[in-house]
Amino acid sequence: MSHIARIYTPEPLVEGQEISLPAGQSRYLTRVMRLETGATVRVFNGAHGEWRCSLAGSPKSVVLVPQDQTRMQVSGPDLTLLFAPIKKARTDFIVEKATELGVRSIQPVFTDYCQTHRVRVDRFESLAIEAAEQTERMDVPSVHEARALPKVLSEWESNRPLIFCDESAEASPMETYSKQLHEKPAAILIGPEGGFSPKEREMLRSLDFVMPITLGPRILRAETAVVSALTLWQSLVGDWQKAPYLPESK
Amino acid sequence: MSHIARIYTPEPLVEGQEISLPAGQSRYLTRVMRLETGATVRVFNGAHGEWRCSLAGSPKSVVLVPQDQTRMQVSGPDLTLLFAPIKKARTDFIVEKATELGVRSIQPVFTDYCQTHRVRVDRFESLAIEAAEQTERMDVPSVHEARALPKVLSEWESNRPLIFCDESAEASPMETYSKQLHEKPAAILIGPEGGFSPKEREMLRSLDFVMPITLGPRILRAETAVVSALTLWQSLVGDWQKAPYLPESK
Repeated sequence: MSHIARIYTPEPLVEGQEISLPAGQSRYLTRVMRLETGATVRVFNGAHGEWRCSLAGSPKSVVLVPQDQTRMQVSGPDLTLLFAPIKKARTDFIVEKATELGVRSIQPVFTDYCQTHRVRVDRFESLAIEAAEQTERMDVPSVHEARALPKVLSEWESNRPLIFCDESAEASPMETYSKQLHEKPAAILIGPEGGFSPKEREMLRSLDFVMPITLGPRILRAETAVVSALTLWQSLVGDWQKAPYLPESK
Repeated sequence: MSHIARIYTPEPLVEGQEISLPAGQSRYLTRVMRLETGATVRVFNGAHGEWRCSLAGSPKSVVLVPQDQTRMQVSGPDLTLLFAPIKKARTDFIVEKATELGVRSIQPVFTDYCQTHRVRVDRFESLAIEAAEQTERMDVPSVHEARALPKVLSEWESNRPLIFCDESAEASPMETYSKQLHEKPAAILIGPEGGFSPKEREMLRSLDFVMPITLGPRILRAETAVVSALTLWQSLVGDWQKAPYLPESK
């Protein structure tokens, strides 16, 4: 069933209650996927599970009619990614990968060495939606407006450990913190190319909720560090022991 | 010291023995990095450690003169990546990330669902060199000519476990195999978009040296699966407990 087109909608999913799609999604289903009236589309909205819908309306203004719920709503673990914006293609990649790897929210942060201050939240949201559709998750991570790192840290909820990927030699592997991370919300902070400034590193290391970790002996690009750190967390205390979200083939 | 330009050369590194650079590297050092005669460049060749060299020659034909060895030669663990070629940008990304994550060799494999049969080994080699320069590793992974998966499997050295990332639900997390993977050469196999054919999966699962693993409940794109699987291996039995390769600042 995973080859059936799958899209996200912000609308409620209720049996028989029509959903009018915007032009972009209409075009995608009729032009790219070449679906015609009566075709089946899988739809999720982050709240009401996944529904099998049938396609109606016109090619430019598709209407979807929910038929039956095929999957229950589930949500991944409470994990936030904080990252410093870098070059465009690589930042896009970070948003896509964070979505695939199951983060619940994405918070861009401005740091001393960050490479750009242009952050388009609407673009990140589109990328997150597209990645969520592809990766079979049942929700879309929320993307927050970019904020300065010190501001974010000053308002931190102290029961949420912040895993800080430090390129210096004095950090421990993530598994050192297994116990403290077990069954807790968490966040992972990845710096820009060039890492964090001495001032930032000092500040981070002075905070009780910060856990500095190492990502091995080679220097990783920021987007690689994102995937590696999220992988380690999901594997250590996240949902990687669970069965796939994929629906039964039918 | 990591901000000093760092390049790979296939030439021997011997004190005082000049190395003539090809046009591309000459241009990189003089035009992009804007280095002038007498500037310091870090150079490695995968055999003789890293050397501090001084720049001479002309802007279009740079000569480097090795001054002193600043790092000993080390090599990462014996890990091979097998992957099925996908779309160009994402394949490039796989080669770059595999290099950052310390694989020793890269073997493209043709599978039933692979998306392209055009594989340019010379391009992969350039990408691997560039990534090795950036990631501070002391060698460059070898890139092999693409081969058909059954052919590769038929000539497999049986003492090298092949970790097979299977999207089906019946696989175990990688840590299940910690003992069998400990202090052994290994290889990781990542399929194309759409995964492996039923025939391929049956063949893979029938082989003693194959260890099917899961990469969590969401569907990962091929390039994400590469980074995740290599991260787990490096973290579990690879070199991620070691101190960085970075030279001392001096």
